[in-house]
Amino acid sequence: MAKKETYASAGVNVGQAELFVERLKGRSRRSGHQNLWKAAGGYACIYPVSEDVGMAFTTDGVGTKLLLAIEESRFETIGIDLAAMCANDLICVGARPALFLDYFAVGKLDDNQSDAIIEGIVQGCDLAGMILAGGETAEMPGLYADRHFDLAGFAAGQVSRQSLLTGEAIGAGQKVIGVASSGIHANGLSLARRILAKLTDSSAQEMRHGLLEPTAIYVKPVLETLQTYANSISGIAHITGGGWRNTLRLNPKVGLEITAPLPVSPIFQSIGSHVEEEEMYKTFNMGMGLVVIASSSEEEICEVFRKHGFDSKVVGEVTDEAGVVRITGFDFTLKDKTA
Amino acid sequence: MAKKETYASAGVNVGQAELFVERLKGRSRRSGHQNLWKAAGGYACIYPVSEDVGMAFTTDGVGTKLLLAIEESRFETIGIDLAAMCANDLICVGARPALFLDYFAVGKLDDNQSDAIIEGIVQGCDLAGMILAGGETAEMPGLYADRHFDLAGFAAGQVSRQSLLTGEAIGAGQKVIGVASSGIHANGLSLARRILAKLTDSSAQEMRHGLLEPTAIYVKPVLETLQTYANSISGIAHITGGGWRNTLRLNPKVGLEITAPLPVSPIFQSIGSHVEEEEMYKTFNMGMGLVVIASSSEEEICEVFRKHGFDSKVVGEVTDEAGVVRITGFDFTLKDKTA
Repeated sequence: MAKKETYASAGVNVGQAELFVERLKGRSRRSGHQNLWKAAGGYACIYPVSEDVGMAFTTDGVGTKLLLAIEESRFETIGIDLAAMCANDLICVGARPALFLDYFAVGKLDDNQSDAIIEGIVQGCDLAGMILAGGETAEMPGLYADRHFDLAGFAAGQVSRQSLLTGEAIGAGQKVIGVASSGIHANGLSLARRILAKLTDSSAQEMRHGLLEPTAIYVKPVLETLQTYANSISGIAHITGGGWRNTLRLNPKVGLEITAPLPVSPIFQSIGSHVEEEEMYKTFNMGMGLVVIASSSEEEICEVFRKHGFDSKVVGEVTDEAGVVRITGFDFTLKDKTA
Repeated sequence: MAKKETYASAGVNVGQAELFVERLKGRSRRSGHQNLWKAAGGYACIYPVSEDVGMAFTTDGVGTKLLLAIEESRFETIGIDLAAMCANDLICVGARPALFLDYFAVGKLDDNQSDAIIEGIVQGCDLAGMILAGGETAEMPGLYADRHFDLAGFAAGQVSRQSLLTGEAIGAGQKVIGVASSGIHANGLSLARRILAKLTDSSAQEMRHGLLEPTAIYVKPVLETLQTYANSISGIAHITGGGWRNTLRLNPKVGLEITAPLPVSPIFQSIGSHVEEEEMYKTFNMGMGLVVIASSSEEEICEVFRKHGFDSKVVGEVTDEAGVVRITGFDFTLKDKTA
């Protein structure tokens, strides 16, 4: 079977989006940015409230996963994805998630649909230790088609200067810990849905259900490991859009070698019949939703994740090959997103 | 001419949305909410970072004003509206806006369109003294039609416990200061667009341009008045969805009597040919984008707004008729949104 589908062929031009974000950063640059604390990977921006205490902020959506939810009329878990995408970003800078605000835009409010969505958001907030502190509900007839909606989340968390993860302590030889994903999470769905459209009804139905599995929320085990093994942990990467290239966001001076990856979930095997392997690893989490870089105590850290129900193990090492991810058994290498 | 158009006939069911938000609040209630500081009007939620310092958060969108921007291919100012809607909410609790994050979702990125939108956001942030510290750009083919997009904003600001506006100090006899709006701002656009659809091409074109006038940003004069006249100011209301009923959010124990309103902008006169007056005041800002309640120094406060280019004057008084706004010359009264 020809593996010719790509994220671009599914209508998502990642390169164009990255250039846009670079232009945006250039145009929005102000002197006030210098006061913000620098943290690894750009997962959150951090406002210094005092010398010692900062507040971390991030925003995210669930992408076209909500189109699948709409097609399946399954609205109970998409809110978990929304809270997860934000909370998992906050913990990558070492922050403790505290508050969540939702933006919920819809063509026409349907009580059953909107109540189910909110239930998911509340459940996700509970799992992430955040309170749903506010939000905006917008009825926008003419923008959204019947039963269509969009969701954006904003999360805030507290972080002390001392526990901020800057990525600077990452160095060659440190261990790369992989933590299992619960499935596709909320990235690359436009490509997955394009594959879906090619499948026969029965296998498509199974895949749809698999794709809707809510995003894992890593807050509790991460906070526990940060409390106990703070001196061992030099970086945390949430694997989102950009796939395993996300690991390169933490420190531009190093690379990664993945020698013993976690099992690749079945959902990626189905998609992988139609997509080249390099594109798969550049787009999806491939079974690994979170990466923790540790200079020591790696087995103990894995054990904490397992205790919280997440498969976890040492999957490789940090290398001094700057900006490159190598995966044993594959010819290609992954480079920094903007490379 | 029959004045039969309402917000509901334009497809926006405010009552249903309010009930939804009430259910949402009930379901999301957690013990952590008790730790948040209480502020007037629910314009922002406030997380206590220390005994003395809190961070205020709010989220908002621009509603169907962006459909007008799309129809007119005028993308330069919709971002100003986005920043304005958020920043004007933050100042109502006494917070100083500091950071802004945007969520920008689009079917397919168009460089010219997206760059213009971001320029507006950056300009709005500059006017509000916020830095654009992060954001999310989501390409969602299949959710948004060609050239369609949605925008959500998230703003954070700092507030000291002492300068928090709780609304508790509002009492009968205090002066109601009105501050001029720049036009319709970003509320009630679905109704305005319904009227537009009834007009002939030439008058419609003029009205479209008027409707796209960006939302006034009141941050600078408000921060100046709060600095100089802190002891005089007991409440600030941003007039958004719900029109003049927003003034009732500040303190449930009082009402307002508006005896000498600011001039009603021409844009509302055009819309008012098709909409009953009561519906107008329940939906639009009617020329008054911000209300400040002051126990003294009202003339000096007005002067600060005028110095910053905003028409401003004492328009009425606080009454002890709880939950009721009376406007001289009209038979109807406005009641609390949920009443």
